[in-house]
Amino acid sequence: MALVFEHETLAQRVLFGTGKAAENVAAEVARLGAARVMVVAASYEAEIAASVTAGIDVALAYDDVVQHVPIEKAELARAAATENDIDLIVSVGGGSTTGLAKAIAMTTGIPIVAVPTTYAGSEATNVWGLTEAERKTTGVDNRVLPVTVVYDAALTYSLPAELTVASGLNALAHCIDSMWAPRADPINQALGGEGVRALAAGLRSIVGSASDQEGREQTLYGAYLSAVAFASAGSGLHHKICHVLGGTYNLPHAQTHATVLRYVLAFNAPYAPEAEQRIAQAFGAPTALAGLDSLRADLDAPRALKDYGFTEENIPEAARIIMPLIPASNPRPTTEAEIQQLLHLAWAGADPVFD
Amino acid sequence: MALVFEHETLAQRVLFGTGKAAENVAAEVARLGAARVMVVAASYEAEIAASVTAGIDVALAYDDVVQHVPIEKAELARAAATENDIDLIVSVGGGSTTGLAKAIAMTTGIPIVAVPTTYAGSEATNVWGLTEAERKTTGVDNRVLPVTVVYDAALTYSLPAELTVASGLNALAHCIDSMWAPRADPINQALGGEGVRALAAGLRSIVGSASDQEGREQTLYGAYLSAVAFASAGSGLHHKICHVLGGTYNLPHAQTHATVLRYVLAFNAPYAPEAEQRIAQAFGAPTALAGLDSLRADLDAPRALKDYGFTEENIPEAARIIMPLIPASNPRPTTEAEIQQLLHLAWAGADPVFD
Repeated sequence: MALVFEHETLAQRVLFGTGKAAENVAAEVARLGAARVMVVAASYEAEIAASVTAGIDVALAYDDVVQHVPIEKAELARAAATENDIDLIVSVGGGSTTGLAKAIAMTTGIPIVAVPTTYAGSEATNVWGLTEAERKTTGVDNRVLPVTVVYDAALTYSLPAELTVASGLNALAHCIDSMWAPRADPINQALGGEGVRALAAGLRSIVGSASDQEGREQTLYGAYLSAVAFASAGSGLHHKICHVLGGTYNLPHAQTHATVLRYVLAFNAPYAPEAEQRIAQAFGAPTALAGLDSLRADLDAPRALKDYGFTEENIPEAARIIMPLIPASNPRPTTEAEIQQLLHLAWAGADPVFD
Repeated sequence: MALVFEHETLAQRVLFGTGKAAENVAAEVARLGAARVMVVAASYEAEIAASVTAGIDVALAYDDVVQHVPIEKAELARAAATENDIDLIVSVGGGSTTGLAKAIAMTTGIPIVAVPTTYAGSEATNVWGLTEAERKTTGVDNRVLPVTVVYDAALTYSLPAELTVASGLNALAHCIDSMWAPRADPINQALGGEGVRALAAGLRSIVGSASDQEGREQTLYGAYLSAVAFASAGSGLHHKICHVLGGTYNLPHAQTHATVLRYVLAFNAPYAPEAEQRIAQAFGAPTALAGLDSLRADLDAPRALKDYGFTEENIPEAARIIMPLIPASNPRPTTEAEIQQLLHLAWAGADPVFD
């Protein structure tokens, strides 16, 4: 098949080292020549932020962080940055904290050094999100991409194993769905494959021992790659389905992703042999599905949508809503009956065998 | 093992499509809003450059391209760019042409859209090279990295199969040597692995049929990845050895690389199990060495340094010169006697079996 693609690689520096966050943040502040640093961290992240920024001068510590970045909060933070002549933002925290830092960068152009404490992955993308009058808007702007990400697995030790597995499976879904997303190309597929390898190894270690250093490192590294691959490739069939299930039926995010992934993989794999092989190799398994199912068993992952509030009666409507959202890039031509079947299998937690 | 690394991802746009160079160049000139374009192409590349730039206005066509970028030639080209108010360089050609474009960008900051016609890979790196008084200087500067690379495999159809195999094996050496180079990290290792996969597939197809489109595409794509991985990871043991053999004994570049690679791989592999596994997977072979040897057999690759002017008497001196150059990152601790043995095996073309 002819190779035709357009790939944009985004400039970013990644400093990865367990126990090195404070040292790496100080080095980056010095390298960037920043004089007036604003530290963004939610109040519940204050302790971790203090330790991470212990080696730098802080001009402004800002903790007015709210989930989904309400526009009023973004504007207050932007004004604070401008009034204080801030020339560098250091964000320390999860997705909401990174999101607020991005909202500031978006209008001011102030660079960000991001120190993530979860597996959200926002730090590795040029995607911003803002909420206005309860409506979330997202967009793409290279100005919001942190110039540097400082990864320190020690900052994630306190994340409970159960939450880690949920976020990790979500990251895994990003990697796998990247393989057939609208802007999928061999570069983001290779990075997605590397993400699958790292996440499978990391999550297995964490389940055995929640503060296993190597497990935390591999999971954090895999979460980074999943964000890079997903931001580059876009949303595939899996994310379109989960978006409808979450938005219309209010199903829980992590469990929905963890359940639906194997059905989308089983559905698409026969029509995407190269992607299937990449995923299988990354799992070190004979087939992609065997690799995923083995990992799911090790992690005791969620199995059936019926356990999370989805009903058999929802299926026809859900399929109808999903149909027009399916990307043209999906390798398997898809009928509404097939989406119904996929949802039915996922509802029941049955073996992913399609007619 | 703890995961510690520093990785800089460089911003670059890649447009890949066979037969699409003219269309993609025109789109990039428009997207970048360039008004005065300088086209850099050697006189022997004039025809190909004319077809690639057929859809754009050219303010200056510049063909004074000389190998290794002599500083006087760089200065003439910089002056021409400045005098002509150039705001974008489009380079069309091999490594020397891209090199001259980089020399201009280095002092003027004018962005480059690079259209490579060989597998040199310079278009994907931030490395520049200049020759002054017969001494070549190289350096790193993000200003010389082309903002966009337009890859069109049709431009490479006229490269003879033999030359293609030689360059392709050189690119393969970059990918493999990246695995244990000084700045090796999982990201550039993953990209290097993807390069091995693409080059192995591509070169096999080209040997069967020199203008096989898929073979040319995979080889060009693999050459791009080899440059990205190598620029990111740096020079490993293989390149240090080949550099001494080429520089001190004047051995031919391509044949030296093609011969030495299997010995360095066999030497390091037992001490670098993760790298070994990545390479084996990329070849789709049970071991990395089996994968490389199978490809070498299919390509009828060079086998012994004695066929290219290296003598058994050169071995002790060569080993002595190589020793202090071996990167501290090399996974296998290395004695002078071992380097002698490696060179002896490579000289003879013997099986790569170490004591």
